[in-house]
Amino acid sequence: MKTNGMEIADRSPESGGGLILSPDALRPARGLDRAGAGTDDAIMANPTGSALSHLECTHCGRTHDAEELHRLCPDCQKVLHPRYDLARVRLEPADLAAREPSMWRYREVLPVRDAEHVISLGEGFTPLLTAPRLGAALDVADLRIKDEGQNPTGSFKARGMSAAVSRARELGATAVAAPSAGNAGGALAAYAARAGMTAGVVMPEDCPRINQVEAVLAGADTWLVEGLIDDAGRLVATSAAGRGWFDLSTLKEPYRVEGKKTLGYELAEQLGWELPDVVIYPTGGGTGLVGMWKAFAEMTELGWIGAERPRMVVVQAAGCAPIVRAHDEGQRHAQRWPDAATGASGLRVPAAVGDYMILDAVRASGGTALSVTEDEMRAATGEMARVEGVHPAPEGAATLAALHRLRASGEVSGADRVVLFNTGAGQKYPDFAPADPPRLPADSPAWRDGL
Amino acid sequence: MKTNGMEIADRSPESGGGLILSPDALRPARGLDRAGAGTDDAIMANPTGSALSHLECTHCGRTHDAEELHRLCPDCQKVLHPRYDLARVRLEPADLAAREPSMWRYREVLPVRDAEHVISLGEGFTPLLTAPRLGAALDVADLRIKDEGQNPTGSFKARGMSAAVSRARELGATAVAAPSAGNAGGALAAYAARAGMTAGVVMPEDCPRINQVEAVLAGADTWLVEGLIDDAGRLVATSAAGRGWFDLSTLKEPYRVEGKKTLGYELAEQLGWELPDVVIYPTGGGTGLVGMWKAFAEMTELGWIGAERPRMVVVQAAGCAPIVRAHDEGQRHAQRWPDAATGASGLRVPAAVGDYMILDAVRASGGTALSVTEDEMRAATGEMARVEGVHPAPEGAATLAALHRLRASGEVSGADRVVLFNTGAGQKYPDFAPADPPRLPADSPAWRDGL
Repeated sequence: MKTNGMEIADRSPESGGGLILSPDALRPARGLDRAGAGTDDAIMANPTGSALSHLECTHCGRTHDAEELHRLCPDCQKVLHPRYDLARVRLEPADLAAREPSMWRYREVLPVRDAEHVISLGEGFTPLLTAPRLGAALDVADLRIKDEGQNPTGSFKARGMSAAVSRARELGATAVAAPSAGNAGGALAAYAARAGMTAGVVMPEDCPRINQVEAVLAGADTWLVEGLIDDAGRLVATSAAGRGWFDLSTLKEPYRVEGKKTLGYELAEQLGWELPDVVIYPTGGGTGLVGMWKAFAEMTELGWIGAERPRMVVVQAAGCAPIVRAHDEGQRHAQRWPDAATGASGLRVPAAVGDYMILDAVRASGGTALSVTEDEMRAATGEMARVEGVHPAPEGAATLAALHRLRASGEVSGADRVVLFNTGAGQKYPDFAPADPPRLPADSPAWRDGL
Repeated sequence: MKTNGMEIADRSPESGGGLILSPDALRPARGLDRAGAGTDDAIMANPTGSALSHLECTHCGRTHDAEELHRLCPDCQKVLHPRYDLARVRLEPADLAAREPSMWRYREVLPVRDAEHVISLGEGFTPLLTAPRLGAALDVADLRIKDEGQNPTGSFKARGMSAAVSRARELGATAVAAPSAGNAGGALAAYAARAGMTAGVVMPEDCPRINQVEAVLAGADTWLVEGLIDDAGRLVATSAAGRGWFDLSTLKEPYRVEGKKTLGYELAEQLGWELPDVVIYPTGGGTGLVGMWKAFAEMTELGWIGAERPRMVVVQAAGCAPIVRAHDEGQRHAQRWPDAATGASGLRVPAAVGDYMILDAVRASGGTALSVTEDEMRAATGEMARVEGVHPAPEGAATLAALHRLRASGEVSGADRVVLFNTGAGQKYPDFAPADPPRLPADSPAWRDGL
């Protein structure tokens, strides 16, 4: 089958020849597509067709070479965004149907040039589940849940790490590190392991137990620190030079956001290239929201969607809500939240480097920002599990708690098409909303008479 | 696009009309296909095209009506298998590429008749990951890992429960129950919740904590018992009538195996309709292995694959290895294993109702059965995570431990194409292979000097 210069064939790796993601690139044999000819770069073993052109500072606007390892803008220390020559992209929405069900289906707008360098565990293209029973309970006619718990390592962090580790390796890095509130550390460790790279992970000492275990088991040099994620970030920064680490702190390098932006592409594709009215997103570092906003702009430029945007809603925990406060106060930058405390570890981010990008998107979209309590999150964990069969991470539960508030206030109407982002598997949090089933002793008459 | 009488269109739910799995059926909007005309049943809102024809006893061969709720064969109390009129199936391998990435892509050979009755959380079509670095370490040229941890609820149990709960509901059941070593209970609770059905789950009191929590949070009536899974099964059986439960104990009803058999269809599709040489499968109740064996036969009848079969390898824990013992002793039925003990909760099944089907498949395929120790499983957990970035459940780790043994003995050669089944996410087992990262106090000089 030939479409727009791209061959798509249901070939397996065994049938040989021209795989877009070869076995050597550690590719999951989940999808069955391959790249055809049509690119002009003969040096690469297996070009992805990426249209990456340069890096651009989101603050000062200066441009930088995308073929060098960069972190923040060398001129103003703000966030760099990769830019693409979208006019060169030979891909139409209809071509996507036969591609592999991972985020690498959007490879033309991702930063990796050679498919041999793609480090993948099958991340992305997660289900966008209908939630009709929950919708009925909240009087929302079209409610959906994007279930990011079905990613490798059980969270949406897999997307950013797949993109960033792949690109860092492509540009020559051999060791990577990041501070993490929990799930990012597990994901970084897994992707670095798969890439054969050394990894460092620094986490708050009270981060979830499973995140500590998964980072160590995947071979990352792992430390727990007295402090929060920004303290951990400081330690990664001071240690990077000595340890030879490329620092992958979110939004302090240009490519994690590229993995996260695929959330936006998927939302559009899974809804037939129409965006919902409201996106409710649990916001720690906010990279997912920033990424979706970037994806929407790219898709408009590609002609895949129109100019309409969902109202972007930021949800934070009452115990750590710097973006909510800045939004309420009309600020573009958020002040660090003192004594941040919440059981939703991913929301325990007292200061986000991308604060201005988050707040810009919320305002430009006509969205809002609000916080929810621990009790509301715990109640919403059970509600989502009980009503729709989706056991959310605490952060995912926060989005449902927020929807309750927004329906009560009328800020979300019953006619709005609403998407909740469950950013991780609730199965990683056995202690957040505990439950103790009754125990039946061996001498109970129930064994004879029934329960 | 019209192929073999089946329309395939990249329509979203929003674009209306003729969806194979409508929003009302709680369908994940992950794939974008729809059913065409071509079935002869005008009563159903949305026919799946299922070719289900009848139930057949795997032991006495008698047939039974598939439109009634059945459990074991009413005549001989052995396992009933659903049979399909495969000659009627209008589906070719090439048609599958554009279908949704879940196990329901194989709907013609699944038992649910009306798509409105499909209860789905997006289960199946999990990545078949290449494992080149692990392959090099074990001197196996083509090694892959089927990563079932990326299913809803984090384990392969989602497949069987999606099929069984959907079909039970289609046939009129309103309450379902099952004994579980852990993950099946979590999956049953989730699918029953999504179906709006009452659920009962009975588990050994020392099953993993997260399985207790997920069952309770999803609203299942949950009990912990002093005993093992077969004790739990006895309690479900004695309680079923009084509580109105339809008992979904594995292989004691005909449809969980139908969900599991999609593992076999996926293996073939993801390998380009060629099966591997060796399948290594962690075997508790063995439904997955039995299901794959059934799928292979169906695919041969459909003309999708030839007559070759992989050598099917059963892996059990040294502390509970009834199938291994029966295999070694040349028996067709296994004796109950006394004092079953292993940290791999899914392998702590002292007696499997499908023992004869497991042993038949192993022997017919030229495979084998072996057990591995707790230490070997723990070591393999770290090895798979560290070398390939896949953090396996203890049961998945057992398959890697087994491969080490089979390479040492020469029973698997370096030229064999080998697939390991990681049946669940290691992230559900924070205590199986524990790790304690170092803690860095706030007054450490490392904050200034680096790690």
